[in-house]
Parts: sequence; C-alpha cells; structure tokens
Amino acid sequence: MLKVGLLGAGRIGRVHAINIASHARSQLVAVSDVNEDAARSLAGAYGAQATSSDAILADASIDAVLIATSTDTHSDLIEKATAAGKAVLCEKPVDLSLERAQACLDAVSKTGVPVMIGFNRRFDPNFSAIKASVVAGEVGKPELLSITSFDPAPPPVAYVKVSGGLFRDMMIHDFDMANFLMGDAPTSVHAAGTSIVDPEIGKAGDVDTAVVTLIYADGRIAVIKNSRRAVYGYDQRVELLGSEGLLSAGNVLENTVSKATKQGVTSAKPEFFFLERYMRAYAAEWDAFVSAILDGAAIPVTLQDGVAALALAEAATQSAKSGQSVTLAR
Amino acid sequence: MLKVGLLGAGRIGRVHAINIASHARSQLVAVSDVNEDAARSLAGAYGAQATSSDAILADASIDAVLIATSTDTHSDLIEKATAAGKAVLCEKPVDLSLERAQACLDAVSKTGVPVMIGFNRRFDPNFSAIKASVVAGEVGKPELLSITSFDPAPPPVAYVKVSGGLFRDMMIHDFDMANFLMGDAPTSVHAAGTSIVDPEIGKAGDVDTAVVTLIYADGRIAVIKNSRRAVYGYDQRVELLGSEGLLSAGNVLENTVSKATKQGVTSAKPEFFFLERYMRAYAAEWDAFVSAILDGAAIPVTLQDGVAALALAEAATQSAKSGQSVTLAR
Amino acid sequence: MLKVGLLGAGRIGRVHAINIASHARSQLVAVSDVNEDAARSLAGAYGAQATSSDAILADASIDAVLIATSTDTHSDLIEKATAAGKAVLCEKPVDLSLERAQACLDAVSKTGVPVMIGFNRRFDPNFSAIKASVVAGEVGKPELLSITSFDPAPPPVAYVKVSGGLFRDMMIHDFDMANFLMGDAPTSVHAAGTSIVDPEIGKAGDVDTAVVTLIYADGRIAVIKNSRRAVYGYDQRVELLGSEGLLSAGNVLENTVSKATKQGVTSAKPEFFFLERYMRAYAAEWDAFVSAILDGAAIPVTLQDGVAALALAEAATQSAKSGQSVTLAR
Amino acid sequence: MLKVGLLGAGRIGRVHAINIASHARSQLVAVSDVNEDAARSLAGAYGAQATSSDAILADASIDAVLIATSTDTHSDLIEKATAAGKAVLCEKPVDLSLERAQACLDAVSKTGVPVMIGFNRRFDPNFSAIKASVVAGEVGKPELLSITSFDPAPPPVAYVKVSGGLFRDMMIHDFDMANFLMGDAPTSVHAAGTSIVDPEIGKAGDVDTAVVTLIYADGRIAVIKNSRRAVYGYDQRVELLGSEGLLSAGNVLENTVSKATKQGVTSAKPEFFFLERYMRAYAAEWDAFVSAILDGAAIPVTLQDGVAALALAEAATQSAKSGQSVTLAR
Repeated sequence: MLKVGLLGAGRIGRVHAINIASHARSQLVAVSDVNEDAARSLAGAYGAQATSSDAILADASIDAVLIATSTDTHSDLIEKATAAGKAVLCEKPVDLSLERAQACLDAVSKTGVPVMIGFNRRFDPNFSAIKASVVAGEVGKPELLSITSFDPAPPPVAYVKVSGGLFRDMMIHDFDMANFLMGDAPTSVHAAGTSIVDPEIGKAGDVDTAVVTLIYADGRIAVIKNSRRAVYGYDQRVELLGSEGLLSAGNVLENTVSKATKQGVTSAKPEFFFLERYMRAYAAEWDAFVSAILDGAAIPVTLQDGVAALALAEAATQSAKSGQSVTLAR
Repeated sequence: MLKVGLLGAGRIGRVHAINIASHARSQLVAVSDVNEDAARSLAGAYGAQATSSDAILADASIDAVLIATSTDTHSDLIEKATAAGKAVLCEKPVDLSLERAQACLDAVSKTGVPVMIGFNRRFDPNFSAIKASVVAGEVGKPELLSITSFDPAPPPVAYVKVSGGLFRDMMIHDFDMANFLMGDAPTSVHAAGTSIVDPEIGKAGDVDTAVVTLIYADGRIAVIKNSRRAVYGYDQRVELLGSEGLLSAGNVLENTVSKATKQGVTSAKPEFFFLERYMRAYAAEWDAFVSAILDGAAIPVTLQDGVAALALAEAATQSAKSGQSVTLAR
Repeated sequence: MLKVGLLGAGRIGRVHAINIASHARSQLVAVSDVNEDAARSLAGAYGAQATSSDAILADASIDAVLIATSTDTHSDLIEKATAAGKAVLCEKPVDLSLERAQACLDAVSKTGVPVMIGFNRRFDPNFSAIKASVVAGEVGKPELLSITSFDPAPPPVAYVKVSGGLFRDMMIHDFDMANFLMGDAPTSVHAAGTSIVDPEIGKAGDVDTAVVTLIYADGRIAVIKNSRRAVYGYDQRVELLGSEGLLSAGNVLENTVSKATKQGVTSAKPEFFFLERYMRAYAAEWDAFVSAILDGAAIPVTLQDGVAALALAEAATQSAKSGQSVTLAR
Repeated sequence: MLKVGLLGAGRIGRVHAINIASHARSQLVAVSDVNEDAARSLAGAYGAQATSSDAILADASIDAVLIATSTDTHSDLIEKATAAGKAVLCEKPVDLSLERAQACLDAVSKTGVPVMIGFNRRFDPNFSAIKASVVAGEVGKPELLSITSFDPAPPPVAYVKVSGGLFRDMMIHDFDMANFLMGDAPTSVHAAGTSIVDPEIGKAGDVDTAVVTLIYADGRIAVIKNSRRAVYGYDQRVELLGSEGLLSAGNVLENTVSKATKQGVTSAKPEFFFLERYMRAYAAEWDAFVSAILDGAAIPVTLQDGVAALALAEAATQSAKSGQSVTLAR
C-alpha cells in the first residue's frame, strides 16, 4: 500500500484525490493547499489529514507525493520532495523556464528518487492504443504525424499573461505526444501563431491559434494544430501515417445517439473538456505510477520527458516570433 | 447519508459495492452472502461488516438494502426487507414466476416502502438520451421501435436450464426497454425463437435466437432481436422511428482508434459485455436510487415495472412455443 | 451489340434508357409508351425510334426488351416478348396476382427464352458486397437477418388503392433480398402491419408500417421492417448476424461533410429516394443483363425469383390480416 | 448545344469525353492526340471525328476546346485556342513555369475569350458543400484550414523528374483548394518537405512527404499535408475551424459495408484514386463549364486562379529548399 500526500487541492488535485483513494494499492493520507479550507474539505472526504506541504515532506510514513500546485512551485517542490526521498508524480509543465527545469532535472538525477511527470494523454486509451499499434509495426514505419488539439474556449486574458504562452501552457501536451509517438526529438521546429480568436490575447503577447511543424533527422514530419476555441467541445485527435497504413484516434463523444430528421443527422459533441475526456487517462496514469513505485518498474514519463517537451515549447515560441525555423541540437 | 446493506457479494454485487462506497451520499455498512468468504473479502475492502442477511434486515441503523442474490430468492427478500422497513433496490428479474412476482407486488404495495428494480439499461447515457429526446418530441410521435440485444457468447447449458429461458432471463431487459421507451404496454406479442447457435440449448428446452414483435393499441409496433452469440462483443442498440425522424443509439466501442491498411479500415469492437458496457449505467442507477430515497423523489423503476416486463416474457415464451400471437389484456 | 426496345418511357424507363444507351455493348433502338409524346421525347434524346410495343415485339432486328410499363401489363408482355423470342428484363413485381405470375412462369418456361426480373437492389454495391461476404463465409453460418427499408414519404392514397398493398408493392424488394441473402425460402411468415403513418391508408385497406418475421427450416430467422415514412430520406439497410460475425450495409449519404457546432455534430442525410440511392445499382443490373444475354451466362434474377418473392408477399398479406403465422410449403 | 473539340485522348481525356458526350447541352465533335490510334478509338466510341489539334482550332463550327494534353503544351494551346475564339477548359496546371503562365494570362486577357482551369476538386460534392457552408456563415469566421491529400502510391521516378516537383504537380490542387475556401491569398508560405517514402525521389531532387503552412494577413492559418503514399487509398479530406464550429469533409468510401468479427470491425477503404473519387466532380465541372459558356455565367475557376495556385507552389518549392518562410506580396 502506497501512502500518499497530495500537494494542491484545486480542480486537478480533486481528480487525483479520487484516483488515489479508490486505487486498491494506494491510500491518501494527507492533503495540503495554500487555501486551507480546500485542503480540509478534500482531506475530510477521504479520511485524510489536512496539513502543510512542509509537514507532508517531513512525514516519514509518507511514501510519495502528488504535486498539483501552481506551476511556479513545481521545480522547488520536486527538488524538496526528492531530497526527502519521496517518489513524485508532478503535474505538467515542470517549469515555465527551460533553464530552471534543466537545473531541477540535474538536482533530481543525483538523488535517484523516481519522478514522473503528469502527461496524462499518454494514458488515454485511444492514444495508448495508437502507441501500441506503432510499436507493433501495424502501419509500418511512421512518416507523418498530425495532432489536432483544440480547447473549447480561451482562458481569461489574466491567465494567459502568466501562462508562459500557448506553446508552454497548451501545446506542451502535444509536444510530449509527438515525442511519445515518434520516439525521437525533432531537429527543426517551425511555428505559425496568430491571435485571431481574441485580439486581447495578442495584446497580451500570446497567440491563440498555432500550427507547428517538426522535422526529424530521418525525414519524418509532425504537424501540431492548436486553437484556443472549438465551440463544439474539446477536440483531441491524432493521426499517424506510416508506410503501411494510417492510424487515427478520434474524439470521445458524449454519447452514441444520432437523430435523423429533415434537417440532417445530428450526433453528440466531443466530451466538453479535459476533466471529462481524460477521466480514464488520469486513473490509468495513477495506476502506472503506483505500479512503477511498488513494483520497481520503469517510470513511464520521466522528468527528462518533461524537459524535452519544454525545449520544444521554447523553440516554437521563438519561431512564432521570428517567423523562421529553429534548429535543435539532437 | 444512506446506510446500506448489500445482500449478495457475487460479480454484480461487487459492482454495486463500489458504487455504494464511492457515492457521496451513501455508505456501505454490511455485506452478506451464502459464501461467507466472499462477503468478508468484499466488506473488508470498504470498511463494512460481513454478516447474515437476517442480521442486515434486523439492523435498525440500516436504511436500505441492495438485493444481488440469486433470482429465486428475490421475491422473498423483497417482502422481508420491505416488512422490515428497508428501502430496496433489487436486481432483475423480480422472479421467474409471474404469479409469484405479482404476489410480491401485492404484499409490498401494502407496506408503502419504496422498491426499485435494477433495470440498469434505463440509466445508460445513450438510452436515457433516447428517452429524453422522445419525451421532448424531437422525432414526433413514435411509430416503430427496434431493439438489438446480442450477448457475446451463450451461457453454459447448466445455467440455461435454471434461467427461466431466454425471454425471462435475457430479453426481459428489452421488454422493459420497450415499456420504458413506448410508455405503454403492447396488446399483442409474437415470438419466433430457435436454437441455431447451440443445439444443446434447444435440447434443454430453450432458444438462443429470437425475434419478438409487439403491437400496441394505437398501431405502433416494436421489434426485439436477441441472440446469445455475437462474437464481436456485446451488441446493444436501439432505434426509434417517429413521425419526424429516427433516433439511434449505437454501441459503445472499446476505443476510437481506426487503422487503415491495404486490407481495409479496422476499428474497435463494442465493449465486451455488460460489466464494461453498463459501468456508467450502474453508477447512474445507484445515484437515482439514493436521490429517490433521500430526496423523496419518485422511484424511477418500480416493482410494477418489473412485473410488467415479466408478463411480456411469459407471453413471448408461450408464443414461441405455439408459433401464434398472444393477446394481452391492457 | 445488343439491340434493345424499351417498353415504357416513364420515370424508371428514363433511367433504363440512359443505361442502355451508355453501355458499350447495348444500343437503344426503339421506345414505346401509352403516352406517345413521352416515347418520342425519350427516343429522340438517344437517336432511337418511337413506336408501339407491338411493333417492337414484331421487329426481328431487336434482341431484347426492357419492360418498364405498369404492373398490370407485365405478365402479358413477358409472355408476348418471350413468344417473339426477345430476351426480357422486366421491372418488379411480375404481377399482383401470384396465380397469374405462376401461369406466366409456366408459359415462359416452355420457351426457354431468358427472362430477368428487375430486383435492382441485388446490384447495389453495398448489398452485393454483403452477399459476396456471406458466400465467402466471412461471418460463418448466417443466423439472423435484419432488413430496414423505409420510404421517405407515403405515396398518394389513390396509388395505394391499386398498388396491391405494402407487402406486394414495397416489401417485395425485401422479400427478394431475404431470398437472395439467405439462399432459401422460409417455412413460416408472420406479419404485423398497421396504418399509423396515415389513417387514410388504413381506410384504403392497406398498412403503412409493418414488421415481418420469417423462420427457416434450419432455425435461421429474418426480420423485415417497412415504413412508408422516414422524413430524413430513404433508409435502406441490411444486417446479417452469423456464427462468426456481423455484416452491416449502411445508408448511402448525400455527402461526407459534417458540421460541429455548439448544437452538436450534423452530417448529411441518406440519398433521398430510390433513383438517387440505386443509380449505380440500375447500371450494374443492366450490365449483368447484357453480359448474361451476350455471353450466355446465367440470368442473375430469374422469373422464378420474382414468383418466389410474390409468394412471400401473399403470405404476409394474409398474416397481417389474420394476426397469425402462415406456414409455407417448401 | 455546345460543339466541343477534345485535345488529348489519354486517361483523363477519356473521362472528359464521356462527360461531354452524355451532357444534354454539349456534343463531342472532334478528338486529337499525338497518338492517332488513341484519338481514333475515342472519337469512334462517340461518333466524333479524329483529327489534328490544328484542324480543331481552325474549325469554325467548334465552340469550345477541352485541353487534356501534356502540361508543357498547355500555355501554347490556351493562347492559340483563345486567339481562334474558342472557349477553353484546360487541365491543371497552367504551366510548370510561373513566368510562362503569367505571360499566358496576359495574352488571354486581351482576347476576352473565357478560359477555365480544371481544378476538379472545387466541384467535388463534399468540398463544394464545405464552401457553401462557409459562404453561408454556418461556422462563423474561418480561422484554421487543414487539407489532407495523400496519393495511394508514388509515381515512377521518371515521371517525378519531369513533373515540376510535388508542390507544382500534386499540392497545386490543395493550394487552389486553400485559395477557394479561404477566399484570399496568404502572405507567408512555409514548407517542410522530405523524401521518406522513396529515397529515389529525393535523389531526383523532389520530396514525397510535405507539410505547408500558409499565414494570411488577418491572422488565419492553413496547413496542407501531402504524401505520395497512403497504401489504403486516396485520402482526400478537408477541415475548417471557424469561430462557430468545424466543417469536415471525409473520404468517399468504396461501400458502406462493415464486418464485425472477433478481430474488430472492418469497413471499406477510400475510393482508390482520383478517377474513382472525383468521377462526380469531373461531371459537375463540365456542367459548370457548359453553363458558363452557354448561359454567359461567370467562369467558376479562372486562368488567374490557375496562376495564383502556381505562385504558391513556386513559393513552397523555394521554402522547402531554404527551410525558411517565403513572404508573398499581396
């Protein structure tokens, strides 16, 4: 039984709390949050203690921590937790600064304590089926990857200003998905980004619509499309063309009902947003973490993976500004 | 908080235990089973007591019981539980004997204690969306209902012999779905049933493939197709033609991935069987029961509904034998 | 080059004219119609002669006739044409009277002249793919066939009165499809038919909504659903459950476009009616006839097939009236 | 009745011949080809004369010519035909040289004779439905366009060498589609192109896999993906994200049949290649040309459109070589 402390009792912390508590091999023992009421309420629902993050890190009976606090605290908490010998599952991104994330990786590497980054989409049953099919060679050699990733609505401009920008905040998931599915890092990044959804986002120095092209050393290409607004719901699709076929993962719909009338045939929309769409992915992610720690298996998404995705986000941010391609060292 | 005793710790009892324990307004306090080890193991996982069904019914602190025991005990347990003042959620069917089920209904009616029958499919998000659309008049007046309901593989012949036959054991779900969606009982039942899947099922006096046609007083028609074997998985679909359109609820697939190769385009199969397909339905069913009891709302699936479905099963069994239609009193 | 006379220049005659004229191995040489203007106009468009049906049958240079006149003339024209040695492709049904159709079959059999009946749906690329898959054993042994066949709108009541009724006029296509796909005739027919779409159809002695169940000697079952009104278009689908899988042929849609908005995802309707849906089938039917005649191949849909479908229509008509099953001699 | 001369009796010429001959308002009167046998054979099938292109251009009774010869002859023939007063429908591309195409446009403009370029995909019922929906504002303001366009198999390397390269030969269709759907020309072009399908294509100086990103003055973005090899068939899809929804045009499948077995659910592949997929588009294109000429309507795809697409192909070719974006004058 893995005894777990949860740092952060916000929206995503609550999702993790349910998965920790309902897993047969883990137990939620403590919750902390800067908002003490939130910590108390969440802890109470699962028979856990509300306490401080320092107290959690100092508690020798706690085996692992799940970091679901604000991004600016991630690197510090990862370093403190690993220094205290706690296994870590930390929400993405590692940091908004590539330099800081790299320093965190260097510090953690010395401890040998396992750290997993919460790129939940790798655990989505659809995308993991794509990965399994690629690995099994079912469509031959991958040649052209396409990722479509649209949010249902743009976040508040106030959030945009502190988010690190679309490439670090939103597309970082897709950079990780590209790294996951292509099994390599690209050598060239080109980004086109504009603010056509909301001019206020442009005034805040960010983009809301973007297309990024990645070129790999062996000639493979990946293209990622992001938009902050798809009014019909969360659009999350992947297509991979290989030498012997095409793999496609479609959206998860709210239901399977269709209605045919004089006006046409209407079916359900995609699940609204990430909490609905990726509910199964979060549970599978937690299961993978528990198995890795308790059974000594390899960590499926490493801190190094987190840094690699951030490096692509940094390059894309630079390319979108200059309009030119950025070459990456391998 | 609804305090709940669970009678029956088998496969379906375990599904209910998870839903009872994880619901914010219910608590699993006791579990009984003829297999005491099964009861102990399940109770232990959720901090409940393993005990006898008599002890559960005698425990004044318990508000409600969920009956997930073998079918032949349902009527007795419903009567005992309601006599003890416990609200009841009982798995389908009420009984294999229409006469016994009717007697149970008569007995329970006098107590005024709420009893709900576990026709879980009414709570499937797809079928409940169909019902909501019908009620909203989105396809006009219903005219022709089609239900496709195929199991992935036939049960052992030993089970078939004690099951009451396909119409009482399997199609009873579809009879309830017809009653649910058409909002009325038919006046005529015709059944065609054969044992083409497995001749042993025929030798045991049952059928494994059946088509039932229901005719309603106002001219509407429903048709139900059952097969004990669909090797590609659990096939659960509904179509309703109305004066202004067609509603269709399709299967829930294992994932959304498709693979296009020289051989064609391959996509995922339907979820394998009822535990996978109706997982969400069982949770929604439990939520509906808790809300009905705690908030005093109407019971969404009544004991009367259970008896009505059984009456259709009885008529279909008779029609399949005689080859002729059976007329029902309204 | 097959020289062809076309008897009947109405809606369906015009479709056949295009196929005859554009086929590399056939030539339209003469057209007749009770409406002489219609014959002249159609003949003119393809460089053919407008003349009388008697003249066509008497013209030794004509190899074959296509009979697209009103149903009540079919049997007579088939007999006259075969007596004159012309190969015949005749629109369905052979006759409204089973007795008359049987007499026609007897008369024609003695001549040895080839006669094909225009059950166009056998040549639909979707349904013929189902047949090919069944024959190839791709889903094992067929067990349960379902045919859905809805028209977009009911015909005028005046037409209904002379149509022979839904079973002879509309479901006859589906009876032939069942015979085609099951490769055998059923031993029992049960029909449920009501007039819920339009009470005037009921007053005219016909039904507009019907479900027919066919039982075969070896335990297989087929079910056919008909409605005279599906406001979303012509609904033409087939499903065949076999011991090793399910084959489904869906509707042909007007286009492949979908539109996702806040209101849901909308896609195109099925092709509106038979001229749109079965355009490719009519061309393939004509090609099959030409090949059969010129290359001496077997006639793919015989006059015997036409009589067999009519026998099922007769039995269904009787069953819908009596409410009881009709047993058929094999 | 439009009297038409066909220049070129190759594969695509034969498709046009059928459409010209079967159209109610056009007549095929003459055919020319460098291969005189091909011209004779095709002319004979439709009662036309086989002759030379010079004779066709000199024949005062001919109203229009369809140019389906090799690309290097297009500009010359367009100039000669318009000088002779013949309306022209010319296959794409106008020329491999942007300079030559521009000169042709200048020459033709002075004559006032109508010239249409055969971008057949604009007439595909799926893509034209997308256009109609955009124009009707059904998804609000367009923001992000995606075009997927994969051929089933790469052409011979010998063809590649004279083709002008993937951007001029293959993606030119997609550049025109972008211009058609976005209703404007982009201001920036970035191309990533590699030869991962076949290294011989790379040695010949061309690419076989490419992603092009177009940025428009108002912030809209379009992305085009091309591959010379999709083993499952011709993959031709368009998606357009707008401020109020998403429009998607999917592939046209060979049939609507699906087969569900233990191995999964298999459905048909996309139509194999352009002759199958765009058969309806070619007929609609010809109908649009006939209507424009006979009814004096506007030419739906102008020579200017042909030059505009070529300008994008030129820019993309340059960008793929340099790895950097190319800025276009508006």
